[in-house]
Amino acid sequence: MIRVGIIGATGYTALELIKILLRHPEVVIECVTSRENLGVGLDKTHAQLRDCTNLVLEEFDPQKVADRVDFAFCCLPHGASAESVKRLHAKGVRVVDFSADYRLSSLDEYQTWYETDHPHMDMVGKVPYGLPEFFRSEIEAADLVANPGCFPTSAILGIAPLIKAGLINTDAIIVDAKTGVSGAGRKPSLPFHYPECNESTAAYKVGSHRHQPEMEDVIQRCSGSPVSCLFTPHLVPMERGILSTIYTRLNQDVQQQDLLDCLKKQYRSAPFVRVTADLPATRHVSGTNFCDLTVRVPSVGKESRHAIIISCLDNLIKGASGAAVQNFNLMNGFDERTALL
Amino acid sequence: MIRVGIIGATGYTALELIKILLRHPEVVIECVTSRENLGVGLDKTHAQLRDCTNLVLEEFDPQKVADRVDFAFCCLPHGASAESVKRLHAKGVRVVDFSADYRLSSLDEYQTWYETDHPHMDMVGKVPYGLPEFFRSEIEAADLVANPGCFPTSAILGIAPLIKAGLINTDAIIVDAKTGVSGAGRKPSLPFHYPECNESTAAYKVGSHRHQPEMEDVIQRCSGSPVSCLFTPHLVPMERGILSTIYTRLNQDVQQQDLLDCLKKQYRSAPFVRVTADLPATRHVSGTNFCDLTVRVPSVGKESRHAIIISCLDNLIKGASGAAVQNFNLMNGFDERTALL
Amino acid sequence: MIRVGIIGATGYTALELIKILLRHPEVVIECVTSRENLGVGLDKTHAQLRDCTNLVLEEFDPQKVADRVDFAFCCLPHGASAESVKRLHAKGVRVVDFSADYRLSSLDEYQTWYETDHPHMDMVGKVPYGLPEFFRSEIEAADLVANPGCFPTSAILGIAPLIKAGLINTDAIIVDAKTGVSGAGRKPSLPFHYPECNESTAAYKVGSHRHQPEMEDVIQRCSGSPVSCLFTPHLVPMERGILSTIYTRLNQDVQQQDLLDCLKKQYRSAPFVRVTADLPATRHVSGTNFCDLTVRVPSVGKESRHAIIISCLDNLIKGASGAAVQNFNLMNGFDERTALL
Amino acid sequence: MIRVGIIGATGYTALELIKILLRHPEVVIECVTSRENLGVGLDKTHAQLRDCTNLVLEEFDPQKVADRVDFAFCCLPHGASAESVKRLHAKGVRVVDFSADYRLSSLDEYQTWYETDHPHMDMVGKVPYGLPEFFRSEIEAADLVANPGCFPTSAILGIAPLIKAGLINTDAIIVDAKTGVSGAGRKPSLPFHYPECNESTAAYKVGSHRHQPEMEDVIQRCSGSPVSCLFTPHLVPMERGILSTIYTRLNQDVQQQDLLDCLKKQYRSAPFVRVTADLPATRHVSGTNFCDLTVRVPSVGKESRHAIIISCLDNLIKGASGAAVQNFNLMNGFDERTALL
Repeated sequence: MIRVGIIGATGYTALELIKILLRHPEVVIECVTSRENLGVGLDKTHAQLRDCTNLVLEEFDPQKVADRVDFAFCCLPHGASAESVKRLHAKGVRVVDFSADYRLSSLDEYQTWYETDHPHMDMVGKVPYGLPEFFRSEIEAADLVANPGCFPTSAILGIAPLIKAGLINTDAIIVDAKTGVSGAGRKPSLPFHYPECNESTAAYKVGSHRHQPEMEDVIQRCSGSPVSCLFTPHLVPMERGILSTIYTRLNQDVQQQDLLDCLKKQYRSAPFVRVTADLPATRHVSGTNFCDLTVRVPSVGKESRHAIIISCLDNLIKGASGAAVQNFNLMNGFDERTALL
Repeated sequence: MIRVGIIGATGYTALELIKILLRHPEVVIECVTSRENLGVGLDKTHAQLRDCTNLVLEEFDPQKVADRVDFAFCCLPHGASAESVKRLHAKGVRVVDFSADYRLSSLDEYQTWYETDHPHMDMVGKVPYGLPEFFRSEIEAADLVANPGCFPTSAILGIAPLIKAGLINTDAIIVDAKTGVSGAGRKPSLPFHYPECNESTAAYKVGSHRHQPEMEDVIQRCSGSPVSCLFTPHLVPMERGILSTIYTRLNQDVQQQDLLDCLKKQYRSAPFVRVTADLPATRHVSGTNFCDLTVRVPSVGKESRHAIIISCLDNLIKGASGAAVQNFNLMNGFDERTALL
Repeated sequence: MIRVGIIGATGYTALELIKILLRHPEVVIECVTSRENLGVGLDKTHAQLRDCTNLVLEEFDPQKVADRVDFAFCCLPHGASAESVKRLHAKGVRVVDFSADYRLSSLDEYQTWYETDHPHMDMVGKVPYGLPEFFRSEIEAADLVANPGCFPTSAILGIAPLIKAGLINTDAIIVDAKTGVSGAGRKPSLPFHYPECNESTAAYKVGSHRHQPEMEDVIQRCSGSPVSCLFTPHLVPMERGILSTIYTRLNQDVQQQDLLDCLKKQYRSAPFVRVTADLPATRHVSGTNFCDLTVRVPSVGKESRHAIIISCLDNLIKGASGAAVQNFNLMNGFDERTALL
Repeated sequence: MIRVGIIGATGYTALELIKILLRHPEVVIECVTSRENLGVGLDKTHAQLRDCTNLVLEEFDPQKVADRVDFAFCCLPHGASAESVKRLHAKGVRVVDFSADYRLSSLDEYQTWYETDHPHMDMVGKVPYGLPEFFRSEIEAADLVANPGCFPTSAILGIAPLIKAGLINTDAIIVDAKTGVSGAGRKPSLPFHYPECNESTAAYKVGSHRHQPEMEDVIQRCSGSPVSCLFTPHLVPMERGILSTIYTRLNQDVQQQDLLDCLKKQYRSAPFVRVTADLPATRHVSGTNFCDLTVRVPSVGKESRHAIIISCLDNLIKGASGAAVQNFNLMNGFDERTALL
């Protein structure tokens, strides 16, 4: 049994993580930490867990955690996360980190977009990006993995194989993403107050969302080619789910079937990517670790040399906690699918 | 007082139309027709109208309608609509037609996309497109107006001024639209059954939606330049509202402020288009005849020569019945805003 | 023209009030106050009002307000409200107060349920309750009116006529109410964070909601008989609307039709209460000042001596701002319906 | 391995059932039947199951099914269900039946409420009601079990122990239930069309819902006392979940803690009933087989001799498919919780 700690256990990704880990036959959750509600039962914070756990929220103390666990999932905000991960890592605890702190290859890029010093800068660029569909062997060998962002996962899985195969243009790839509100986290604020976001759709952080450089960086690492993305997230009135609609120009003579074949080939042995001829919907992946993908090349109208890639996943599962457990499984030599089907 | 008839009164656009017309000081609704529920009170079909009307659903008989009304709003599906409009028009009834039948300039284009013969083909290309922001004088002089499609309205208002001013590229304009479910009409079917579309987002009719040629056609008429659009609608779990996110390449040296200034100038005296520096949300135009517009030119990241135009409106009001009354007001010499504020 | 001030203009009821008053032909809004965002345009706080108003949020100064307005709508929380109303009233400003401060007849009852001293206690019991369906003449003569609570309005309109007519039992009337989330106000907090209340239904404040004594007090004032109510509110995932399902025992020999007839007779000349044979739905009154009412006496099964009264309204309109304008109209000698249809 | 057939596999309860059974270590799904879409892949009907199954929809032929399966879950409407169950049962297939056909003890009662002849009338009154919390040993011994209705489960679990213990009155127990839309099934019709039921709450089948006699019948079987219930279901805009608010008069001297203690004692060893001091919410049981229960005795106000029992569950899981698998587990000697945690 792997003894596990969850650092920052009160949010939505932590709840999904705990629900998955409670079903995992090789895991015992040893401790859950928080900056608030110390001493309070985890099932008070997450009423879903009533009668399912006796865990109590503890303050984070790296030494005490390291004494009790083999493995930690760190669900803290960027900056704070690297601070904690650094300490756990130094004491030999293996970690999947949910924050953005170890995702980018370049420290400069990190400092440009996150506007803060990095507390663990010697590791930047050396931590595998936790997308097993592209970085499986690095993840298997790692003791620290950077869990991907939810939007980048949806974009990279759709774009990278087509770039690698030379089927689409690398310039000005447009990623128009629609996300449910749980992606904003559990801290109440006006834009996520029910009467503000129900029955409303809006774009936000247009041209300035931090997941844009992450997509560009990782697509380059997956495909070998530098790319530029124009990323626009939108908030839609649902709890969970991301659908990314991706517009790219086709390279010469490429047909729709070529693109579908390329994706199918890439994900032949990936248990959680489903390439489909039908248009996917977030409902069909909700609560699962699947990412559903399709691609269309419009054949009517004046314009016909674009591909439209559509990618969808559950932002809390394949976009966060499911991916984290998938990485955990690989890091521990378990079947990748354990507790995820 | 103008005596008005509503042809096809049981749907959602008809309900919104009736609610607006009941507030209109110069209108009396004389008859409402339907193919079903003949003899049934209108307030049985639309419980919202309890105690507000004594109208009863009647069968559509062109002669009987023409004898009683000066003006008709025709809310029938394409094909059926032109059939009815043709008869009313022949008897001297002025009409705003909600269908697509008179929107396109070219009969060929109509037949390609709508796959049907046109029952009133001599009028195709001769009917003003009911977007007063561009075709005011034609509308004022007309006795038949083609009410615009909901998606085209949101796209044209954002794109046409920038094309006309030569600020953006005419090729491969990407229109990624998100719509509430009322846009699908009131006929029950599985994709719009509550448990299917709640908590879900999906694209549909990718590259094949009939509003694509309408946008292209009308933008050309507004701006003088042929354009190509790549239009992808998405269904999001809300009742009403459309948000279109439009991606275009900038022409040389154009800045974000140039684009905003261009839009502000264009709509200086348009009472229902609000150009705003903030990002709009469908909530803020819900239940109103406003279209809110903004534009952004991203300045960070590798990619910076695209403009992102964001346009939103209520698909049942500015996208249908509000626009229809705006046209009606102009056709009758009333203040454009009557009953719409 | 009546010059109007709105004290506490940043919440949802204030927004609905402003939208109604902007359509009111006899009103000019002179000032809007707030405790935050001073100097900020009202259309920044309520983006719905873009291009509709130039009003700017001001600090509340009773003297300055009194100098500029004839009439104030006070949308502050209880306690704070009476404090402000007292000052405005002393300077001759007429007021509709949205808070609970003047609703109860008894100061003791106020202090028991609101656990605070009353800042304007000499007026308690002397202010008309702003339900024109029962207190029209008092309202017409008043210079201060207590606008009713949303739940009490839905309950009183359904119960009081049947008690007055002696048709139902006065003891243990069960009021099971379902409300949309806007009733909780605009201040973000965890229970009203979108991912917490979407896709969820729950009861709250069971047996301890402050609207319970208000219902009991006012039903007694309307009917002459003391009653006891057991009130349980529930939060359902919608923005607006209240549906109250009210269970009462029938007095001897009373039939369903007797109850419907009684309600119809009571509201014969009430323009905003619609007694219907069909079951009402909150959708059908949403955005309107209507309260829809019906009553059923089950005739199958073992139990048949209960009546089930169903009452629904829009909590922000008939449950708040629509009622306030209805009161305003009566206090000023205008047609009760002005700006409300 | 138990070979399982699912009769009527295209609805929502069938989908949830299949998802649970795919996780069940002792089950292989051998066949899925339907009256439509014969020959179509199950994953076309339920896109959630893409890549998870190769099953294809077949016509129902009792002999062919009996040849291939040990056990059937019958998800057909009442009447049709007993017809099919009768044939399978005759061929030795064990069955959990989702319909109402075997739930009532009395054929007369069945014919009164369901207005049809019963195709398998000799079994009426002889089939265990599949609520393991009360009928465990009968279920363990049975080869046919009547899976409970969703509303009755929520009501019986809350009411029966308190009746049995003599703590509450048996007369006029009021059950006010709120349900999500999936309870209406998957067949599109106007009341469940998204724009009709979103943002709306309404009561339906007031005093005439067929789950009322089921509650009364089973509570009597559980507790030994005849009771009368007044049952009013309401449709609220969410996909899944039922919350029942139950109003009963207390017997003499009973306190809130007595009621909670009684429930806790009753469900001490029931793994899927959670008795809680906090108010439950449907969100907290969504996607699970739990029923959460609490009870309150109001102590302020004029009225204090009522208990308010609040019960919530997921209508598709504990209210249907989870309960079915719980019964299946018991009928096969498996741990009751298999595949359900």
